[in-house]
Amino acid sequence: MKHKPEHVAVVGGGLVGSLLSIFLARKGMEVTLFERRPDPRSHSAYQGRSINLALSDRGWRALAAVGADAEVRRLAIPMYRRVLHREDGTLGYQDYGKEGQAIYSVSRGGLNRALLSLAETESKVRVHFGQRCVDADLEAGRLVFEDADAGRLEQRFDAVFGADGAFSALRSEMLRTDRFNYQQEYIEHGYKELSIPPDAEGHFQMEREALHIWPRGSHMLIALPNPDGSFTCTLFFAFEGPDSFAELTAPAKARVYFEQHFADALALMPNFDAEWAENPVSALCIIRCYPWVKGKVALIGDAAHAIVPFYGQGMNAGFEDCYELDRILSEHTDWHEALDAYQRERKPNGDAIADLALQNFIEMRDRTADPRFLLQKRIEARFNDRHPTLWTPLYSMVTFSDMPYAEALRRGKIQEEIMESVMKRPDIEALWDAPEVEAAILEACVRAFGHR
Amino acid sequence: MKHKPEHVAVVGGGLVGSLLSIFLARKGMEVTLFERRPDPRSHSAYQGRSINLALSDRGWRALAAVGADAEVRRLAIPMYRRVLHREDGTLGYQDYGKEGQAIYSVSRGGLNRALLSLAETESKVRVHFGQRCVDADLEAGRLVFEDADAGRLEQRFDAVFGADGAFSALRSEMLRTDRFNYQQEYIEHGYKELSIPPDAEGHFQMEREALHIWPRGSHMLIALPNPDGSFTCTLFFAFEGPDSFAELTAPAKARVYFEQHFADALALMPNFDAEWAENPVSALCIIRCYPWVKGKVALIGDAAHAIVPFYGQGMNAGFEDCYELDRILSEHTDWHEALDAYQRERKPNGDAIADLALQNFIEMRDRTADPRFLLQKRIEARFNDRHPTLWTPLYSMVTFSDMPYAEALRRGKIQEEIMESVMKRPDIEALWDAPEVEAAILEACVRAFGHR
Repeated sequence: MKHKPEHVAVVGGGLVGSLLSIFLARKGMEVTLFERRPDPRSHSAYQGRSINLALSDRGWRALAAVGADAEVRRLAIPMYRRVLHREDGTLGYQDYGKEGQAIYSVSRGGLNRALLSLAETESKVRVHFGQRCVDADLEAGRLVFEDADAGRLEQRFDAVFGADGAFSALRSEMLRTDRFNYQQEYIEHGYKELSIPPDAEGHFQMEREALHIWPRGSHMLIALPNPDGSFTCTLFFAFEGPDSFAELTAPAKARVYFEQHFADALALMPNFDAEWAENPVSALCIIRCYPWVKGKVALIGDAAHAIVPFYGQGMNAGFEDCYELDRILSEHTDWHEALDAYQRERKPNGDAIADLALQNFIEMRDRTADPRFLLQKRIEARFNDRHPTLWTPLYSMVTFSDMPYAEALRRGKIQEEIMESVMKRPDIEALWDAPEVEAAILEACVRAFGHR
Repeated sequence: MKHKPEHVAVVGGGLVGSLLSIFLARKGMEVTLFERRPDPRSHSAYQGRSINLALSDRGWRALAAVGADAEVRRLAIPMYRRVLHREDGTLGYQDYGKEGQAIYSVSRGGLNRALLSLAETESKVRVHFGQRCVDADLEAGRLVFEDADAGRLEQRFDAVFGADGAFSALRSEMLRTDRFNYQQEYIEHGYKELSIPPDAEGHFQMEREALHIWPRGSHMLIALPNPDGSFTCTLFFAFEGPDSFAELTAPAKARVYFEQHFADALALMPNFDAEWAENPVSALCIIRCYPWVKGKVALIGDAAHAIVPFYGQGMNAGFEDCYELDRILSEHTDWHEALDAYQRERKPNGDAIADLALQNFIEMRDRTADPRFLLQKRIEARFNDRHPTLWTPLYSMVTFSDMPYAEALRRGKIQEEIMESVMKRPDIEALWDAPEVEAAILEACVRAFGHR
């Protein structure tokens, strides 16, 4: 098929699937969106209990392209800086970017409901809930769904997008085909959610417009604000070993551990024991695969590249997939060539953000507790202020720009090497803002990037 | 379950499954062996058409442990050296090891039939053919099989071994469980089999007791002898690109290519056109996963660690799994601890032989054509002769020893660095057997390995 498909299926009505449906419908295709779960807007059972999400520039750009940004902004709380909670009870602060730059805390459930409603306002989008994809013929574009009453629906489409998440059913079908490369890799840490409710007057009990971190070396606790005055906290902790979930199965043991290491947080958690006992420990997986396109089916979002949550980029990367796919479709007349260009362009970026997310776990849990790391960040921020076209901190390239992730990763590595050599100066604490340090970075930049 | 299981299922009646059944039965367990295909001894359809196998010391050791070596030796042809077929038609030679050391060409089909017959002579082994494993409950040890008439058999076992190969059905079940790490990676090359028949008098048309290689840089042709006087040839060639299967779909084009690059082989292939047209191009996949044990099920052989065939170690590694599992079971009274020790010990070795096999592709297809590489091998062999306890060539550690693969990989890397520095001497061609070269290697060894 050379021409644009008429009937397209999007499998998965999560964040990426809902947004993608809008993009495709606006391109003139008839879109049928299939979601495994019941409609989250009428079934309170689905609360979107997973980690709060941090929406940043790449995500906003995609939302703005379909006019969804204004509505989403009402659900989002800006977080301008990291608040570091040290073990001794003192606090530290680290701005995410320049003045006014922020990442935005949103609940997965609220955002998903908003995007589904927007998708349904498109005349060319039809949404079917409670439809589990149980079989697929990738070459023919034929999909088989089962609903809760075990009714079967079989339908053929001109094109199919698998936006069905990290455990994608369509990707499972690809796994059976010849020469499909695939990797799923679990990290040694899992996570458990806890919560800090609002105080008696309904107010936030910690600084509101910030992401709170308790960095503890091999593990960490974080907290993101919710519009109701509460914080959703997430403990990232090893499954096994000395400091691990395996050691703290009983809430009483966990309480003792928190008293030692997260005392200020524990003091704000009246439901700690019950939440510890009831909330599950979830695993964290990195998924890489290629090709993303097989027969009539293309993968997008987590289905193509699931990553760990430590850069707050999983959703943003998926939204950027939609945005870039939309652009690529506009640039091609041949549908197959377009999809091939899509997978070739996005695959290295999916790999790069997977690596970056893993790196950032180490930064968050360990390096943010190090005064020298905070000094390095200050030097970088200062240099960036004075030479904004020469140097953008890695975090800002990833979070506050639309530079391809692969390019951000490449530049970030070079910049990190430059900063490591600058930090080796014996006098760096005193001279951090001196002209000679600035000159040294400038010279290293010119050598590395070949321009000033 | 702490104690040794009574009823054990082995899924997969290939080489590893057949041998494993014998080992387990000798330990006193009741073994049921399930094979998807019909009995290869009565169904001529199954010819074992895949690449000939090279049996070496690790494989022989496992076969000897169950007394199967004498019978297998009758099916095997020793290959003492590589015969290199250069593009100009001249030949070169490279011994595999010391005098008398050889790898052995066997046909997969013949070896499989022999091992199945041996397994059936065990009173505690029962073999069921034509049984496809379609479902498994890993925790309960419950397996569901379907036969050709779609009859279903469901049975519960105390323990299950998945010896069902690179595309293991049991591993597919593990893939759905939490925290199972998995990778399947296809290399860019595929392979096609061709053949060189015996001459009119039934004799071999090339040197019999050798592995023939046509090294051509990015690709290669190899040939292994069969007892009937023929050679099974295998072309390893890229799927896509300038020199690739995609370019040579028509036999006429392939013939022109062979006339240019493999003229002496083509001259011995009367059925070239038909074989080129009919024989499939098969893909080559590396599979890594962990854990190997989930619930009552343990993976073994290719199901746990499928590798590329370039070191001739796939079957040998699987046979060594059986041998080492047998030893580990003897050393433990607790069954779970034994299986855990098995996976912990064998996993790094599975990873190492996967890496080694990929490395050896480059050595075979590219480096064997380089006179300097052959010189390096001569220097190594000479040093090994004079200091056999200090230095064993990597190929010999892998092929002619029972050193763990991971240790062979580690030592091999150090030795390669030493040889690279020796080969940099400007006078090395003249001085290759001089005392000063020997002294330099000796000194480097002492530095690297800390002893003489």
